[in-house]
Amino acid sequence: MVFPEIHLFGDSDTAADAGGWLNAAAEPLDGPRIRSLSRLAAELGVWLIPGSVPELGDDGRVYNTAVVFDPRGDLVADYRKVFPWRPFEKWAAGSVFKVFDMPGIGRGGLSICYDAWFPESTRSVAWMGAEFVVNVVKTTGPDRKQERILAQANAISNQVFMLSVNAAGPVGAGGSIASDPEGTVVAGLPTDQPGLITVQIDLDDVTRVRQGGTEGLNRMWSQMARGDPRVDLPIYSGYIDPTTWQPKGPS
Amino acid sequence: MVFPEIHLFGDSDTAADAGGWLNAAAEPLDGPRIRSLSRLAAELGVWLIPGSVPELGDDGRVYNTAVVFDPRGDLVADYRKVFPWRPFEKWAAGSVFKVFDMPGIGRGGLSICYDAWFPESTRSVAWMGAEFVVNVVKTTGPDRKQERILAQANAISNQVFMLSVNAAGPVGAGGSIASDPEGTVVAGLPTDQPGLITVQIDLDDVTRVRQGGTEGLNRMWSQMARGDPRVDLPIYSGYIDPTTWQPKGPS
Repeated sequence: MVFPEIHLFGDSDTAADAGGWLNAAAEPLDGPRIRSLSRLAAELGVWLIPGSVPELGDDGRVYNTAVVFDPRGDLVADYRKVFPWRPFEKWAAGSVFKVFDMPGIGRGGLSICYDAWFPESTRSVAWMGAEFVVNVVKTTGPDRKQERILAQANAISNQVFMLSVNAAGPVGAGGSIASDPEGTVVAGLPTDQPGLITVQIDLDDVTRVRQGGTEGLNRMWSQMARGDPRVDLPIYSGYIDPTTWQPKGPS
Repeated sequence: MVFPEIHLFGDSDTAADAGGWLNAAAEPLDGPRIRSLSRLAAELGVWLIPGSVPELGDDGRVYNTAVVFDPRGDLVADYRKVFPWRPFEKWAAGSVFKVFDMPGIGRGGLSICYDAWFPESTRSVAWMGAEFVVNVVKTTGPDRKQERILAQANAISNQVFMLSVNAAGPVGAGGSIASDPEGTVVAGLPTDQPGLITVQIDLDDVTRVRQGGTEGLNRMWSQMARGDPRVDLPIYSGYIDPTTWQPKGPS
């Protein structure tokens, strides 16, 4: 079960006193809030992403952190939003992208709201082996229109399922969307009305699309050949290395 | 004036004998074909991107190269397609992204067809200061649907104009599209019928959107603050450096 970004915390993270509010609400990941959510996941026997939570880091800073619980209640992944929605949000920025394994099912990637506007985010978790990416969102404005396009595009260019789960009204603009690896919208909530979607996805579709190609044609993860030159990416002080241009397999 | 990818060369680049055909058609950039195109641009007094041409490199390999002529007929930019459409196309792969300056107007970025499926391409030229990106295309199949979404998404996430100029029927699938920096389609040819579009764009919109935000909100190129951590990008053996996260200004 997936809930939107900062779902348990109303509309306070962009409030005028956001700094004070966040500090008051933040807990470390071994605090009572995480223990409660852990018990809830175990009690229900479900995989649970309760949106994201204000995390008090060891460094004293407050992060917007998505958490994943398995059906035993174990916290199997935590991801600090790398791209807080500045200048509106006061969260400290994370710097590490994260994936998580669902044994016997597949690998998921984590992404929070504005991360979806930076292609580096979905690209990184796809390369780390994510077959689906959960983007928990709290978008309140007209830019939800762009986000729906970005959700499809992030799915297409990485050949992953994208689940963009936005807060409903009156807080959020709604418009949640699930895209398959070819960019087809397979489920969604078109308006800002609250709702629950059940989406059944077959992660083998990721393998099928990557091997057979988008529309039977395009295999972007099979692009590189040995002997190809490195593609320089000065923007990242880095490059595409043809020998490592392949998503990692499940562990 | 912009024409589609490999526009002067029919449908031969994905033919069964593509290798032989390409070798026969390829010329170096100081060859007679480029001189003819140069004369044409000067005669008409226009900026000319005649699609892309088969370029015989100094290394003896054949590249798919977009060329840009100014109204004096000078070849001001050449860009070798970094992501040939494999396994169908036999072009050697380029490795360097390119921009060009239109004095008094602005800076453009170059992109060829399948490059648009790799977010690194548009990202790189945007960071190099491109305010608009010309993507010359020869897409013949149903994947033009995805490309139209990618054109909008590349515009949105980089806050640039995207001009995706595809070959028309009977060779190509048409569906050319021009997107503004907020992802709004400002012009296009919806079908595969041949046609000519005149698009008037105001490059100040790029500055306006970057400063005021997409939908008045999102300023992704102003995201980073000094003191932010580097964002590790192991996929590129690189990182986002907060101190250089800014498109370069016009020279």
